[in-house]
Amino acid sequence: MSKKSSESNIIYVGRKPPMDYVLAIVTAFSGSEVKEATVKARGRAITTAVDAVEITRRKFVKEMIVDKVVIGTEEMPPREGESNSRNISTIEITLKRS
Amino acid sequence: MSKKSSESNIIYVGRKPPMDYVLAIVTAFSGSEVKEATVKARGRAITTAVDAVEITRRKFVKEMIVDKVVIGTEEMPPREGESNSRNISTIEITLKRS
Repeated sequence: MSKKSSESNIIYVGRKPPMDYVLAIVTAFSGSEVKEATVKARGRAITTAVDAVEITRRKFVKEMIVDKVVIGTEEMPPREGESNSRNISTIEITLKRS
Repeated sequence: MSKKSSESNIIYVGRKPPMDYVLAIVTAFSGSEVKEATVKARGRAITTAVDAVEITRRKFVKEMIVDKVVIGTEEMPPREGESNSRNISTIEITLKRS
């Protein structure tokens, strides 16, 4: 698998409801050749990412398993009018077909 | 280590600010014989748990590493006036001395 096509299986979770990302994960796994997808989120969206993965695994793609969960920190540029950069927590959930 | 003393190293993350839980994690690792602690959270507190672990690891206990992150789902009793039980996402972050 080329770098490009593997990158297309990254789902970035933001401020939409969990079901939007459930659909994205289900779609990522819909091709039978797709073996892996990664769900990424930061800040408050971390909970949404976990919700989306759990709903997908329990209700939609039962053969999907959580292969690895990595947490980390990203430095973000300062908000307008502030001088300090901010640290924001991140999560990366790697999913596989069991 | 007996089951009892190992259970005492579980930190339950709730609705307080992350720094409250940072202090709890730092305290859990303050005994030099302490090798492991687990941070648990569910729902919206998942982000707070990740924040607390990341702040602790980066600023206070640099020899601490994230050993394992497990996500899951817990069934909760229905809210008053509702009939369906609710599913809530959970996280368990196991921390070790490196």
